[in-house]
Amino acid sequence: MKRLIVASTSTVHGSGYLEYLLPELTVFFSNIETILFIPYARPGGISYSEYTSKAKEAFAKINIEVKGIHEFDNPKEAISEAKAFFTGGGNTFELVNQLYKNDVIDILRSRVESGIPYFGTSAGSNICGITMMNTNDMPIVYPPSFDTMGLIPFNINAHYLDPDPSSKHMGETRETRIKEFHVFNETPVLGLREGSWLEVFNNETKLKGELPARLFRKGREAVELPTETKIRRETLS
Amino acid sequence: MKRLIVASTSTVHGSGYLEYLLPELTVFFSNIETILFIPYARPGGISYSEYTSKAKEAFAKINIEVKGIHEFDNPKEAISEAKAFFTGGGNTFELVNQLYKNDVIDILRSRVESGIPYFGTSAGSNICGITMMNTNDMPIVYPPSFDTMGLIPFNINAHYLDPDPSSKHMGETRETRIKEFHVFNETPVLGLREGSWLEVFNNETKLKGELPARLFRKGREAVELPTETKIRRETLS
Repeated sequence: MKRLIVASTSTVHGSGYLEYLLPELTVFFSNIETILFIPYARPGGISYSEYTSKAKEAFAKINIEVKGIHEFDNPKEAISEAKAFFTGGGNTFELVNQLYKNDVIDILRSRVESGIPYFGTSAGSNICGITMMNTNDMPIVYPPSFDTMGLIPFNINAHYLDPDPSSKHMGETRETRIKEFHVFNETPVLGLREGSWLEVFNNETKLKGELPARLFRKGREAVELPTETKIRRETLS
Repeated sequence: MKRLIVASTSTVHGSGYLEYLLPELTVFFSNIETILFIPYARPGGISYSEYTSKAKEAFAKINIEVKGIHEFDNPKEAISEAKAFFTGGGNTFELVNQLYKNDVIDILRSRVESGIPYFGTSAGSNICGITMMNTNDMPIVYPPSFDTMGLIPFNINAHYLDPDPSSKHMGETRETRIKEFHVFNETPVLGLREGSWLEVFNNETKLKGELPARLFRKGREAVELPTETKIRRETLS
């Protein structure tokens, strides 16, 4: 009875924090009064309490209370008792580092597997994959592992960007980077464009939002998956 | 008697591999007949021999022979006996991973510290810093450490890109990422734009190329360093 929303970004251009997702979140979190927020990714290095305030403000609009995991004495207990989860974006290396340091990654995984609804954006979505190896973030801290929760059978590349044919910059495109990943790894990678998200109900995963997503598999041409595609075992193979 | 060229990129837009640097390299490697090439970063996942062929071709234009480290039975011995080094760009995580796996990072550092000339581009420049924590690359493999050679007393952000004010993309800018790094770390970071390089002679480090570089220090406003700036201890403090 797994239930997840795995979003590429928290914010689309020209709209407020989480605003484009609120209609979806209202349905997803119906009957939920309080969400446990995991602010470990600290976007721009802001504090846990600043970040939690931002989440509180957005969820207040749909009458849901938010508590930050740092407000509890024991983060494991906070996870054990939570009725719903939201992990915000920021730096994926620091998020994963803190999940390991606080020894909460296993309990978070098992709670989500048991049916507690989980919502992630950006870094909070990356950790739903098998590894964090397709993050775009800078490795500003060294986490004890790149392994993440494996709640979906592939990796996420959030904020997926198409190559810009007019660019004179010689840095690698996102597609080149993901192809390099497949020289060393087998795991499929889904490039989720901004404004796209995955809706996971048990083992059914559906692409939502207006844009297609780009699926990369080792040794295969990348393909575009239209919105509303159900991502099944055969889609990934 | 340290001597290094630490370049942001191998290739500037509209010109061939290493072409813009050949006049500089002719002087830097005068009296050198053979360079040891370290192809571990494998740009685009190409093989060591393909990558080495590319380097051979470029250096043939200035009458220097190139040997790939993989052509030797013992990579440590290859480093011990080399008269000059070139480490090419690609994926910094895989480069650092292989430097540790082959147990050559310490000997490479000590050979460069003893005066053997070293030329790096992109990932090959990142490893001259204290850590690889300011790479733009994707973490496609998990290296045993992010610590690098510390041949210069700061970190490099290669292919430094200024924020694009017209962008609608919500991913972090390079400047935001480097500021996040300074929430967790003290090491100064030099954003080297494409076409810029550092010339290190012993403990004197000079910025070369047409563009200024952007220097980030913890708790300070970022500053622009004009080309030909000598980067001294006081510049970094």
